[in-house]
Amino acid sequence: MSTLEARKLRHIEACLRPESQYQRVTTGLENVVWPYRALPELDMNAVDLSTTFLGKALRAPLLIGAMTGGAEKAALINRHLAQAAQRLGVGLMLGSQRVMLEHPTALSSFEVRPFAPDILLIGNLGAAQLLKGYGADQITRAIELIGADALAIHANPLQEALQLGGDTHWAGIAARLSEVVGGVPYPLLLKEVGHGLSAEVARMALGAGLAALDVAGAGGTSWARVEELVRCGEVRTPDLCEIGIPTAQALREVRAAAPQIPLIASGGIRSGLDAAKALMLGADVVAVARPLLEPALVSAEAVEAWLEKFIHELRVALFVGGFKDVAAVTGKSAG
Amino acid sequence: MSTLEARKLRHIEACLRPESQYQRVTTGLENVVWPYRALPELDMNAVDLSTTFLGKALRAPLLIGAMTGGAEKAALINRHLAQAAQRLGVGLMLGSQRVMLEHPTALSSFEVRPFAPDILLIGNLGAAQLLKGYGADQITRAIELIGADALAIHANPLQEALQLGGDTHWAGIAARLSEVVGGVPYPLLLKEVGHGLSAEVARMALGAGLAALDVAGAGGTSWARVEELVRCGEVRTPDLCEIGIPTAQALREVRAAAPQIPLIASGGIRSGLDAAKALMLGADVVAVARPLLEPALVSAEAVEAWLEKFIHELRVALFVGGFKDVAAVTGKSAG
Amino acid sequence: MSTLEARKLRHIEACLRPESQYQRVTTGLENVVWPYRALPELDMNAVDLSTTFLGKALRAPLLIGAMTGGAEKAALINRHLAQAAQRLGVGLMLGSQRVMLEHPTALSSFEVRPFAPDILLIGNLGAAQLLKGYGADQITRAIELIGADALAIHANPLQEALQLGGDTHWAGIAARLSEVVGGVPYPLLLKEVGHGLSAEVARMALGAGLAALDVAGAGGTSWARVEELVRCGEVRTPDLCEIGIPTAQALREVRAAAPQIPLIASGGIRSGLDAAKALMLGADVVAVARPLLEPALVSAEAVEAWLEKFIHELRVALFVGGFKDVAAVTGKSAG
Amino acid sequence: MSTLEARKLRHIEACLRPESQYQRVTTGLENVVWPYRALPELDMNAVDLSTTFLGKALRAPLLIGAMTGGAEKAALINRHLAQAAQRLGVGLMLGSQRVMLEHPTALSSFEVRPFAPDILLIGNLGAAQLLKGYGADQITRAIELIGADALAIHANPLQEALQLGGDTHWAGIAARLSEVVGGVPYPLLLKEVGHGLSAEVARMALGAGLAALDVAGAGGTSWARVEELVRCGEVRTPDLCEIGIPTAQALREVRAAAPQIPLIASGGIRSGLDAAKALMLGADVVAVARPLLEPALVSAEAVEAWLEKFIHELRVALFVGGFKDVAAVTGKSAG
Ligand SMILES: Cc1cc2nc3c(=O)[nH]c(=O)nc-3n(C[C@H](O)[C@H](O)[C@H](O)COP(=O)(O)O)c2cc1C
Ligand SMILES: Cc1cc2nc3c(=O)[nH]c(=O)nc-3n(C[C@H](O)[C@H](O)[C@H](O)COP(=O)(O)O)c2cc1C
Ligand SMILES: Cc1cc2nc3c(=O)[nH]c(=O)nc-3n(C[C@H](O)[C@H](O)[C@H](O)COP(=O)(O)O)c2cc1C
Ligand SMILES: Cc1cc2nc3c(=O)[nH]c(=O)nc-3n(C[C@H](O)[C@H](O)[C@H](O)COP(=O)(O)O)c2cc1C
Repeated sequence: MSTLEARKLRHIEACLRPESQYQRVTTGLENVVWPYRALPELDMNAVDLSTTFLGKALRAPLLIGAMTGGAEKAALINRHLAQAAQRLGVGLMLGSQRVMLEHPTALSSFEVRPFAPDILLIGNLGAAQLLKGYGADQITRAIELIGADALAIHANPLQEALQLGGDTHWAGIAARLSEVVGGVPYPLLLKEVGHGLSAEVARMALGAGLAALDVAGAGGTSWARVEELVRCGEVRTPDLCEIGIPTAQALREVRAAAPQIPLIASGGIRSGLDAAKALMLGADVVAVARPLLEPALVSAEAVEAWLEKFIHELRVALFVGGFKDVAAVTGKSAG
Repeated sequence: MSTLEARKLRHIEACLRPESQYQRVTTGLENVVWPYRALPELDMNAVDLSTTFLGKALRAPLLIGAMTGGAEKAALINRHLAQAAQRLGVGLMLGSQRVMLEHPTALSSFEVRPFAPDILLIGNLGAAQLLKGYGADQITRAIELIGADALAIHANPLQEALQLGGDTHWAGIAARLSEVVGGVPYPLLLKEVGHGLSAEVARMALGAGLAALDVAGAGGTSWARVEELVRCGEVRTPDLCEIGIPTAQALREVRAAAPQIPLIASGGIRSGLDAAKALMLGADVVAVARPLLEPALVSAEAVEAWLEKFIHELRVALFVGGFKDVAAVTGKSAG
Repeated sequence: MSTLEARKLRHIEACLRPESQYQRVTTGLENVVWPYRALPELDMNAVDLSTTFLGKALRAPLLIGAMTGGAEKAALINRHLAQAAQRLGVGLMLGSQRVMLEHPTALSSFEVRPFAPDILLIGNLGAAQLLKGYGADQITRAIELIGADALAIHANPLQEALQLGGDTHWAGIAARLSEVVGGVPYPLLLKEVGHGLSAEVARMALGAGLAALDVAGAGGTSWARVEELVRCGEVRTPDLCEIGIPTAQALREVRAAAPQIPLIASGGIRSGLDAAKALMLGADVVAVARPLLEPALVSAEAVEAWLEKFIHELRVALFVGGFKDVAAVTGKSAG
Repeated sequence: MSTLEARKLRHIEACLRPESQYQRVTTGLENVVWPYRALPELDMNAVDLSTTFLGKALRAPLLIGAMTGGAEKAALINRHLAQAAQRLGVGLMLGSQRVMLEHPTALSSFEVRPFAPDILLIGNLGAAQLLKGYGADQITRAIELIGADALAIHANPLQEALQLGGDTHWAGIAARLSEVVGGVPYPLLLKEVGHGLSAEVARMALGAGLAALDVAGAGGTSWARVEELVRCGEVRTPDLCEIGIPTAQALREVRAAAPQIPLIASGGIRSGLDAAKALMLGADVVAVARPLLEPALVSAEAVEAWLEKFIHELRVALFVGGFKDVAAVTGKSAG
């Protein structure tokens, strides 16, 4: 097992601990009031949850969040996630593929296309790697080796800063992003890992030509916390670990700064109602990571059951809010 | 015992559990400040609580909220409620009469006129039934069979959505309401079941010709919770179960949207002071459901005792607020 | 022991219970920010706490609040209070003298002049009595029999409303107050008993010619609670018992409505800092009732010790706030 | 051991108790949102924390807060603090030197220059002493005897007021400050001891010619509490002990009133993130007292370890906030 693989497993264990979640900061979604319409003028089963994202059809505006890859357990997790995504017609974001580029044996854990031939599949690499030599070629390889539709670049300076030997050389990152985007013939996304994108970062990303954004805001899993749990077994700098832009706020400011960009809401999305509210704040789809980790350790069916309940809640929310489809919630014109 | 009858009983049991009440959302009445006037210029026993609603005289601006009917226990409950209402001169809203239209043997549990010849008596049917064939004829029959003065149509999309096999076909509801109202020679009301009417729904109801509204807002009994308690023994989607418009807010926005409509405040009204505040926010009368369930299982006297304390509190509130009668609180010109 | 005497004793016992205090409503003084001046330009021992109220000199802007009289224990309490007031040069408000007018034997419990020849001494009678026959003559007698300087009329409609057989005939009270004030050759005050005077009531009192006001606002002792504790052993209508105008708000609105009237702040004044804040909100003096009940049951020394600590706190507050005397805090021009 | 020396030791013990900290009032820094920039355009190790204060270079914008001197234990504490300050290149504020002026034997406990030849070293005396005879000569001697660069005069009227026999003669303090400043050939600072400087006091200090200010605001150590703990073993006047201007507010108002003055933020600074926020509110450097007391009792290494973690947190905060140096945070033009 490589160092990187072992690290992945420790990350999974840390994520399962309740201390991996923000303790004081919340997503802010709890303060968003969901409308209630006692006479909805709708049939609930006719509420249309389908949408398209990055050109691919989704049966619900939902992606499984970027989590893992690399270790044996990761292969199992990814297979379960992929099978559930295929059955339900939702998207799947994979975990960082760096391990697979560096250790060819790790590739298999990312090969989920056989289980999910039709889904929107999104690869993953770290922004910090771009400044350490990774470029358009590696990214293109990362996408093509696993048959992904797109790839998300995660920006995680706080996580790196709290990591022993983390990559904290970020000078030149914007220029490097531009360069790389230009050389990759697939859509690239920018995401955080739980501390949020700001309006300013959204504008930088637009300038660099990124195709979509995932706010990955504060209020759910804090990778600063995960990193300290992995390193010290406990959270040593609780103040720093609460830094971040709450998901609801990140959505509002990013959407205002980039009205047209395809936008994923993630970070603390825990129920179908959270998802509905995130759409109302301007997201096109939502992504959920940690709540799916436990079911993914069990089976594809467990993942499916969790997602089905989530999607049902989302449907109920749209029905009682009087929204006939996703576009009616997001305020975009619908078909 | 029919399925519907059995369901009614399970509902009663669920309502008795504390989990049937909203856990985070409150009515908002606790933030309404009641005025205090140290020199009231009034005799408390001369404070006049009488009013008229839907053309019938009430000795206090109070209705017993829509609860039950159908089962044997329900007959007892309704008799106790009716006897107390008659003695105190307040109104009575009955539970859904669907069971009685479908199972003639259930009729007797709704026949309360012998015990309450003089009261304002209001029947009840579900809005969803209107789209499944029920129309002006059934409503008229439901009213006349029990000698009611009016009938309340309950709109409960969230409850139906969370119910296994619930009626979630609501497309066309506004047109159907209009149609039905035109064919019934009695006043019809629109009410929720604990999730509230919005300004928009109030305007739809006005357009459809309804005679009165009952906001049945959030903060007291949540029928979403009741439904999950009945179905699963516990609340499975706590987020969805807190959806709704708090009673105080529903009152404010409905009154603003429909300044003249006869308006009932219900949903979490628990004390005479709550009632006084609801009147101050624009309600003509208030209705109370769940707190009367326990005394109604015991005796008419128990119901009466509960109501007398409530009415006394209301009187004290008006006295120390310096209000000589109900109209002085609601801001309407009085006799 | 007369019924009234027995009632007084039960009141004392009830007041000693923590449930006699407001449970949710607070005075609002906790939100008033006291200024801090790190360079005060003052000598603390030169801070001048003396003032005059109703023409009498006080060594600190402080009165012992109206509490009791009538029973044997009450005589003891009043003696201890009077002795402490004399020694410290503060004022004393006595409890209701109705018992003494109706039972001459009760007079002695109010005769505190021998122990306190120099203090500002204020008698007490209920407003409700004015409508039951009491008039200028009885009030004058109540004052003269005990050598008081003035008399406070307590308005307590909520207390009366929650009392079995309470006096709830208040129609005509304003006219009656005017009448009575005209016939009494001593200054009369209007006070509440813990539920507060509003701006409107202050204007009525001004119109009736009262010489001073004591807001006796909400946040400390609630006489609604005391009454229910006496009657039922517990608080039965907790909602009604929280009605009232918080002391800080009562001060603000009464002072705005009556900029010149001599004004007492009471109701929940618990520390010298509370007193300082009340002065800043416009009070001329403060009054404290319940905290002095326990020491008054013990000895004059115990009362004195409590008051000395309180006065010291007030002095410290003025010193660090940079106020050289009472007038500097209240904003009135000083000598 | 002199009385003053014994008092110092009791103060140290009291400061170690958790009751020495504000219980309700907080610094307000917890409500200051720290920006997060997912793409920082910086290398973390290139973030420049160095600055100059009162003409001396600092490797981080940090001073060890004024604490002690006089007793044997104090000598040890001061030595450990000085050694750590020297190694890390931060400043050191010493505790009150009054004891050393009155008891020559106490001088040695302040002689830290041998351990810290290069640091910014700031002496300390109480403002109240200036009105009891201390003047420019004593201050100059206090500075020169220990080779300090400057001296902080602490204004502590609340502490003195709660102290048995405290110095509460402050009349004439502004004039006296002016006089003294004019006669001392070193920079003088004004600081509080945990209750905060206001805008008004800042203006007085400017007028008197002081060279710098330390807000020493509310939210951390409360010297009112310390004084009561020393005197009574418990806090007797909890209300008075919460008086003060929270650090965040003090910073905002002092900076607005004195845009150019060198400004120290202290009072409840507990983490590098607190420090970062204080800089954002306008401080030039921060000072930390109580958290360093425990490590200072142990060793210079313990102090160093605490400070290194703090400085690392500050660096991480600047990095993820996208600030390349201290001037970028404070908003001042940088080199
Ligand atoms: C077990 C686990 C592994 C993760 N691994 C990655 C990763 O490799 N790359 C990435 O961009 N984000 C990763 N994340 C972050 C998530 O994609 C997501 O942004 C974050 O967890 C917030 O979402 P949540 O609150 O729903 O968990 C991971 C999250 C979890 C829980
Ligand atoms: C036992 C029970 C049965 C109810 N049944 C009905 C019903 O059949 N029809 C209806 O419109 N509402 C029904 N309701 C809802 C109430 O009328 C009311 O809108 C709701 O309970 C909120 O009021 P509360 O907080 O005072 O209980 C029922 C309520 C209870 C507690
Ligand atoms: C034991 C006790 C007896 C009281 N009796 C009287 C009374 O006879 N007349 C009156 O006007 N107020 C009476 N009060 C009310 C007080 O004067 C005061 O308005 C009220 O207690 C609020 O002040 P506090 O919060 O400091 O107790 C009494 C209060 C107490 C505690
Ligand atoms: C043990 C100790 C001793 C102190 N002694 C002094 C002193 O002699 N002179 C002074 O100006 N401040 C003194 N202070 C106050 C601090 O300088 C500082 O203003 C205050 O403690 C608030 O900072 P903190 O919350 O970081 O402790 C002392 C503080 C502590 C904890």
